[in-house]
Amino acid sequence: MLDYFDMESTLSEEERMLVDSARSFIDGEVEDIGQHWIDGTFPMDLIPKMGEMGFYAPNLEGYGLPGVSETAYGLLMRELEACDSGLRSMASVQGALVMYPIHAFGSDAQKEEWLPKLGTGEAVGCFGLTEPEHGSNPSAMETRAEADGDDYVLNGSKTWITNSPIADVAVVWAKDHTEEGTPVRGFLVETDRDGVTTNKIDEKLSLRASITGEISLQDVHVPAENVLPEVTGMKGPLSCLTQARYGIAWGAVGAAMDCFEVAREYATDREQFGKPIGGFQMQQQKLAEMATQITLAQLLAHRLADLKEAGEMRPQHVSMAKRNNVRTARDQSRIAREMLGGNGITADYSPMRHMTNMETVYTYEGTHDIHTLIIGEDLTGIPAYQ
Amino acid sequence: MLDYFDMESTLSEEERMLVDSARSFIDGEVEDIGQHWIDGTFPMDLIPKMGEMGFYAPNLEGYGLPGVSETAYGLLMRELEACDSGLRSMASVQGALVMYPIHAFGSDAQKEEWLPKLGTGEAVGCFGLTEPEHGSNPSAMETRAEADGDDYVLNGSKTWITNSPIADVAVVWAKDHTEEGTPVRGFLVETDRDGVTTNKIDEKLSLRASITGEISLQDVHVPAENVLPEVTGMKGPLSCLTQARYGIAWGAVGAAMDCFEVAREYATDREQFGKPIGGFQMQQQKLAEMATQITLAQLLAHRLADLKEAGEMRPQHVSMAKRNNVRTARDQSRIAREMLGGNGITADYSPMRHMTNMETVYTYEGTHDIHTLIIGEDLTGIPAYQ
Amino acid sequence: MLDYFDMESTLSEEERMLVDSARSFIDGEVEDIGQHWIDGTFPMDLIPKMGEMGFYAPNLEGYGLPGVSETAYGLLMRELEACDSGLRSMASVQGALVMYPIHAFGSDAQKEEWLPKLGTGEAVGCFGLTEPEHGSNPSAMETRAEADGDDYVLNGSKTWITNSPIADVAVVWAKDHTEEGTPVRGFLVETDRDGVTTNKIDEKLSLRASITGEISLQDVHVPAENVLPEVTGMKGPLSCLTQARYGIAWGAVGAAMDCFEVAREYATDREQFGKPIGGFQMQQQKLAEMATQITLAQLLAHRLADLKEAGEMRPQHVSMAKRNNVRTARDQSRIAREMLGGNGITADYSPMRHMTNMETVYTYEGTHDIHTLIIGEDLTGIPAYQ
Amino acid sequence: MLDYFDMESTLSEEERMLVDSARSFIDGEVEDIGQHWIDGTFPMDLIPKMGEMGFYAPNLEGYGLPGVSETAYGLLMRELEACDSGLRSMASVQGALVMYPIHAFGSDAQKEEWLPKLGTGEAVGCFGLTEPEHGSNPSAMETRAEADGDDYVLNGSKTWITNSPIADVAVVWAKDHTEEGTPVRGFLVETDRDGVTTNKIDEKLSLRASITGEISLQDVHVPAENVLPEVTGMKGPLSCLTQARYGIAWGAVGAAMDCFEVAREYATDREQFGKPIGGFQMQQQKLAEMATQITLAQLLAHRLADLKEAGEMRPQHVSMAKRNNVRTARDQSRIAREMLGGNGITADYSPMRHMTNMETVYTYEGTHDIHTLIIGEDLTGIPAYQ
Repeated sequence: MLDYFDMESTLSEEERMLVDSARSFIDGEVEDIGQHWIDGTFPMDLIPKMGEMGFYAPNLEGYGLPGVSETAYGLLMRELEACDSGLRSMASVQGALVMYPIHAFGSDAQKEEWLPKLGTGEAVGCFGLTEPEHGSNPSAMETRAEADGDDYVLNGSKTWITNSPIADVAVVWAKDHTEEGTPVRGFLVETDRDGVTTNKIDEKLSLRASITGEISLQDVHVPAENVLPEVTGMKGPLSCLTQARYGIAWGAVGAAMDCFEVAREYATDREQFGKPIGGFQMQQQKLAEMATQITLAQLLAHRLADLKEAGEMRPQHVSMAKRNNVRTARDQSRIAREMLGGNGITADYSPMRHMTNMETVYTYEGTHDIHTLIIGEDLTGIPAYQ
Repeated sequence: MLDYFDMESTLSEEERMLVDSARSFIDGEVEDIGQHWIDGTFPMDLIPKMGEMGFYAPNLEGYGLPGVSETAYGLLMRELEACDSGLRSMASVQGALVMYPIHAFGSDAQKEEWLPKLGTGEAVGCFGLTEPEHGSNPSAMETRAEADGDDYVLNGSKTWITNSPIADVAVVWAKDHTEEGTPVRGFLVETDRDGVTTNKIDEKLSLRASITGEISLQDVHVPAENVLPEVTGMKGPLSCLTQARYGIAWGAVGAAMDCFEVAREYATDREQFGKPIGGFQMQQQKLAEMATQITLAQLLAHRLADLKEAGEMRPQHVSMAKRNNVRTARDQSRIAREMLGGNGITADYSPMRHMTNMETVYTYEGTHDIHTLIIGEDLTGIPAYQ
Repeated sequence: MLDYFDMESTLSEEERMLVDSARSFIDGEVEDIGQHWIDGTFPMDLIPKMGEMGFYAPNLEGYGLPGVSETAYGLLMRELEACDSGLRSMASVQGALVMYPIHAFGSDAQKEEWLPKLGTGEAVGCFGLTEPEHGSNPSAMETRAEADGDDYVLNGSKTWITNSPIADVAVVWAKDHTEEGTPVRGFLVETDRDGVTTNKIDEKLSLRASITGEISLQDVHVPAENVLPEVTGMKGPLSCLTQARYGIAWGAVGAAMDCFEVAREYATDREQFGKPIGGFQMQQQKLAEMATQITLAQLLAHRLADLKEAGEMRPQHVSMAKRNNVRTARDQSRIAREMLGGNGITADYSPMRHMTNMETVYTYEGTHDIHTLIIGEDLTGIPAYQ
Repeated sequence: MLDYFDMESTLSEEERMLVDSARSFIDGEVEDIGQHWIDGTFPMDLIPKMGEMGFYAPNLEGYGLPGVSETAYGLLMRELEACDSGLRSMASVQGALVMYPIHAFGSDAQKEEWLPKLGTGEAVGCFGLTEPEHGSNPSAMETRAEADGDDYVLNGSKTWITNSPIADVAVVWAKDHTEEGTPVRGFLVETDRDGVTTNKIDEKLSLRASITGEISLQDVHVPAENVLPEVTGMKGPLSCLTQARYGIAWGAVGAAMDCFEVAREYATDREQFGKPIGGFQMQQQKLAEMATQITLAQLLAHRLADLKEAGEMRPQHVSMAKRNNVRTARDQSRIAREMLGGNGITADYSPMRHMTNMETVYTYEGTHDIHTLIIGEDLTGIPAYQ
């Protein structure tokens, strides 16, 4: 895989081994992801296998989690997304959006109950923040929680929730109307509770090898001990998003790298007009540009990891990296696809699949435009969202 | 539909009526094209209905064909592709790639046999030029014809053939090894002849609402009267491509127009941060750019029609229009999709479907890069294909 | 000059002759415009010569003005800017920003006094709208007029005024504080009046072959008969801008066409690696793209002329054409320059001069961004300037 | 200055001090570089002052040179070009193109004679490689050397030679016709030798604050000891270009950073429509994009420095960095300029000056396109120059 500025030489032995084992896993265990994409299915057998490999929140510590470096975690996301954004999304949601908030904001009982079985993939989690009418502005959420004796009663609906139809537990963010100011709180909602329904969204043309659904909450009772005790306000969900976006910033690099390798190989194999098409200037231009943009994205991801490891990473850093790297993957996957000519529109080659996936990745976890405005505010001191 | 520079005022009454009837047809007869796309099926019931409407080669005359203006024909392609590139492809192949060469190069017997039933959609045709190893350079084709008594025997394989699995007849281009210099000739090959197989290509991620397949020819005997008598050499297939590309240059405008209307409506309806997203500068920028690019593409298509009507259209004009207009549709459909946020990745809205279709359209009938080089040669006098 | 889609065939004989005579004039009368650019001077001898040729407001009628077609007028602007934006600016200011408002909004006496001598170039005019603190939002202007007996007293300062240092008369827009609501009014201010100073701006790095200055007004008395009687409010200056922008939309095409011709000639002459650089794919790609973008800009300008001639042109049409065509000239001049390699950075070739000029043209008469928002408002019904 | 991903924290104390001292030097010693640009002059008083500061080849060791880190050297180039590409060009030519080859390939006598006085700026050098007919393909050079007793006789002409009109010595590359295969050799040619003329090129519209000229060699006799003894073939000049391009890859970042700071400050100060323009979405988008692209360029430069320091830098790495970073500076300076509106076209603000300079930087030391093909060859194994 492309490593033009030799970042491998900066890795630790452990990091290198993790890359190798992730690649072996994908080569050995993931069968015909293209067909899954066409069929709109996730390879369910991978869920426990990925747990066994330690792919869920390996950067956390305790509860059997290995606490690998942020670079190692990033490299893992990269390798998973080199296969398909669906795999990386599985790991992102489980690790960064479910295990992370339980780890960071949960009670000891919550941690003990959930982290081990989420870590192994015995249980599947999902993250309920986005609502039908509130995508880019989640703080306007309408889902509400009200105290009812020792319980809370939840009402509302969430959508675009990765894995909701297959999840055992949902981290649901809702406004607590019991308290003044209706602060946002996180609730662990088991999906088999009365009043919870999780319809699957079938008509996707992107990220089809990933399950997406809604969460409908109608008078759902959850006990008070299901509240995440250590966080109040939008800081809760936003800090989860920062973790997940970090993984996306890395993951997108993987998708782009895979596209590049496929395009390079095709260009050196495929002959037209009597020579490999990789020998034509216009095709070299595409390869040179892809290699450059991928190298830049790699450097950004690596530097982001260093900042995270050092405790210096700000959410705005993540915004810049998510925004840039996903755009790179989006643009370069399209170039790779076009280099493959007619063959490029099939599931036999990965670029078009990555290209379509990138439309989701460009949009979720903060759209490209929202990240633009986050950076813009950071640079000028003036918010311009409204 | 967007008509910012009021081209409608330049249309004849007949042209305006044709636009209206095409729109009515699509509204009334085409059901859930998005589901067809997901399922990888073409709405077969439309084939005779489109014939009844006169959508196949209406710009030709005789044999019951109405001989409408080139502008009218272009507008029809535009309206069909505003629905889906699959519909326009159906009409393009039937009209420009099958009926056109029979009309232009066929014997009277061939015309009488085929034009009426192709015109009504009673029969379906396909066009066999591209081969697995020869996409951008068709003159290197390997399919061969050899005389055997009064017959020709054809051997070879063609691929990326729209409608081959459902076609009754294929216009197959092959090198005639009976003659010195092995000139290219066109053959009308009924698909029920011995030795003909037409496998469907299933794994497409683009233009899924259109049937694509191969044509395999193994010792296929066709009588000499199935040769198109009036053309020899690459001029034959290339002149067909000019006709089809003309339709694509118009069709792509339709796809882009549809994306624009969907995005504009979404932007004025969808509220975030307390107002329609169409009121935000970054979204207006997208709409303004889409409207500009579409207006330019419209003007190019209209001017191309005038040149064609006047007999002044050169293949290089078509190259410029196909190249520019498809790129516009490809780029602007992506922008439209991103404006729709999460909803934009579903089949409930057309932009992502158009966006994926455009990858095929960008590639077939001369890739974007090949058209670049055709124009480049025209401007410099120097061929740079090799 | 490039005319890929043969728009010449749509011209009248008169229009064709005007193009020819403009080209002859530039070839014969304009000496070393590159040196003027370096020196920061306008070729003053051209002012009356351009008048003699009828280059100032030829689309107006009466007072000795020929009343040519809007297409003819556009073609003239195109040919002037193919030489240098400075020449076109001279004609635009004199014709569209000074003669036009006098013609449209002036009294008979004003017309009789000024139109003949502005038409011949005996007198030079300028247009005072923009203020140091109010560029994109001219309605916030601070320049004020107050009645004092039969006179008005003007105070304020204007900047970025083409030709102010050499003008005999300025059309100054000011808020009339005598009236309720302080409506904007136009004043003909002779520059030799007490209190008028017109400093030249020397430090320009763009449009250097054009004189730009300020207008400072300190207690300047003008008689009431110097008010333009027939217009009140921002409609006055804005309608002038529409006229001038129309000319720019055409002029920019000329700059781009000149760049293209220089680049094409260079590419077919200059050899590297044993052949003309125009034979390399990456250079053909640049030429093909230039030719395409120029063709689109030409079609947009021609259609705009037809709408104007028919009385159907809206200011938003002009915004789209100015915005698109100037961007095209800005982008394509840069490509042309890069094709010329080292030679491209000199005044011996026009592209870099055009490229730097385009920065001004991109900014004046409504910046690119303002036109984006004008179109955006038109498409959505929502203003987003603030 | 922008350092969004906090690369400063990775610098050594020495590196940080060098940045500070370079900034102080520029603030204190460089007067009105904008006026120099307009006048087409280089501030000659800076030549010895820059020597005193140790700005010439500080990454080399011995002969009084400090041997700073490659990162330090890069940062210095960045700071110089943040002022003007003319200053960085002065340092690049003197250090990387003259002192470097003497240091790497010179005899002890050559080193002792030239390195000290070039290092202090007492003498000025230039680099004679490019010829009028051979820009992108220097190995086709026509300049020839022939032995004549103990001398060589040089004939030929070089052009686009930075500093040739003010140089004391030129490193001239010529084909040695005395030897079989006419290998390229380097010659130290004092410019006061008979037969040497160095005309200045005056008509530049870019990099005007830098002296550029030709070198004409007519039967110029140089003694054999003026030959650089330790290198033969194109490896000689190409290794110098690698050094200089390394500095450009860093320098371009400085130009872009300066543009960004000017634009950011302008955007937060300048008000229109009642608020700072930096509060508008479309302007934030520009700032966010500039910050992103600059951050990427910074990371690329820093990683390149690490590779160079480790002895792992290949010329292709430099090609990628030069190509990307100069393009970034070229594109972003244009965006910065446009954010400044009318003020942006003046020498009062740096962006337009940087923007025009970048046209030269984009072209010299390997055009953008040549670097594309260098990377393309590296990725495919297929050369596509011809």
